[in-house]
Amino acid sequence: MVTKHQIKLIKSLAQKKYRQQFGLFTVEGIKGIEEFLNSDFQLENLFTTKAIFDAPNNLTVDISEAELKKISSLKNPNTALAVFKIPEMVKTNHKGLKIALDAVRDPGNLGTIIRLCDWYGVQHLVCSANTVDCYNSKVVQATMGSLTRVKVTYTDLEDYIKSSSGQVFGTFMEGENIYKSKLPDEGIIVLGNEANGISEPVKKHVDRSITIPQFGKYRETESLNVANAAAIVLSEFKRRTIET
Amino acid sequence: MVTKHQIKLIKSLAQKKYRQQFGLFTVEGIKGIEEFLNSDFQLENLFTTKAIFDAPNNLTVDISEAELKKISSLKNPNTALAVFKIPEMVKTNHKGLKIALDAVRDPGNLGTIIRLCDWYGVQHLVCSANTVDCYNSKVVQATMGSLTRVKVTYTDLEDYIKSSSGQVFGTFMEGENIYKSKLPDEGIIVLGNEANGISEPVKKHVDRSITIPQFGKYRETESLNVANAAAIVLSEFKRRTIET
Repeated sequence: MVTKHQIKLIKSLAQKKYRQQFGLFTVEGIKGIEEFLNSDFQLENLFTTKAIFDAPNNLTVDISEAELKKISSLKNPNTALAVFKIPEMVKTNHKGLKIALDAVRDPGNLGTIIRLCDWYGVQHLVCSANTVDCYNSKVVQATMGSLTRVKVTYTDLEDYIKSSSGQVFGTFMEGENIYKSKLPDEGIIVLGNEANGISEPVKKHVDRSITIPQFGKYRETESLNVANAAAIVLSEFKRRTIET
Repeated sequence: MVTKHQIKLIKSLAQKKYRQQFGLFTVEGIKGIEEFLNSDFQLENLFTTKAIFDAPNNLTVDISEAELKKISSLKNPNTALAVFKIPEMVKTNHKGLKIALDAVRDPGNLGTIIRLCDWYGVQHLVCSANTVDCYNSKVVQATMGSLTRVKVTYTDLEDYIKSSSGQVFGTFMEGENIYKSKLPDEGIIVLGNEANGISEPVKKHVDRSITIPQFGKYRETESLNVANAAAIVLSEFKRRTIET
């Protein structure tokens, strides 16, 4: 049974300020919960309608479908909801290829970018403080478990870039044609906000402006979705590492 | 002023069956509406809070912000809502590169795939009958105007593929490494459903199974989001056309 106090706590985790206050976030659905249980993340509580998880008994609470509905953020809740602890942020001075996000606001975009990082073996994702919170339930859902494998850090992006070595790439509507550019196997790739692109202060620190050329005869398409741009840019950087 | 009858009609267009019955769909926001006004799409009615559009007077209805709220499907409506006529579907026997979608269900995914087609100059998108309707307001919104430039056809995918010439490519978790494959500048690329991939009946007609290899050390990532897969595959097919 889930207590009133627990319901209140879980519901509060829909808001970033309470996630930060309590250091907790929620994961829903069988697959997602299993991935987090099998990771370094620490379980706080598992609320489940079926005894199918390999989780400590003292942290597991059996609940009814009706109770699950009360605590779920989904229209169609799926079996269980787990509360995990938000891990401490690690300072990233990792070498290799890194992605940095400048004010990406859409949870679905951040989620799929985390999934892309996981796919392409990018272990560190650096986000500006005004990028959407990666423990937002919609982000967690969209990452499909990849959040357990990609380290996400929130920081002042200018400071981070200034203190990093390696070339800084920025994606713009104009710049070097990515298909014709020599690309290294390390560095920072900055992707900007959905509507405004990369902010002026961050732009100053970009060493190389790259662009994905348009092939359509119209050339009126405003821009690519930021997650799709991330997909294409990561694909280009990474394929070069296998072709040589 | 918007009449009760008009409110009822516009609200009904949130459902596919009424869009099909009336042959109408809605577009919201200044930029989107302007793109459709400048295209071959035919305006039925424009409901606007500001006189900023180049639209026929007899089809324009001045409304208040409160009225816009009543007819909008958005949380934060933006200036205007337009009703356009759904054009007749054209039979596509176009040469060149084509994308075919097998039961893609998420409106955001379809919208960004249409935007990608536009970016990469793919003029025809063929969808299975059970793919989400491209006149769904969320799809229209996500295309950012690209729907005015990409022809979308709904049909029986098996029949379509059987009657088409050119190689049929399918994206799978296993197959030819796309980065190492020779790719032609025409053919059909089939992308499958978000959860289940390409369906068995359609799979039979695929000539070449291609895959986007994983680079991460974990190799546990389940799959890429279908729109991101579309981005990477289109990028690979199209970059080859400029490299030779």
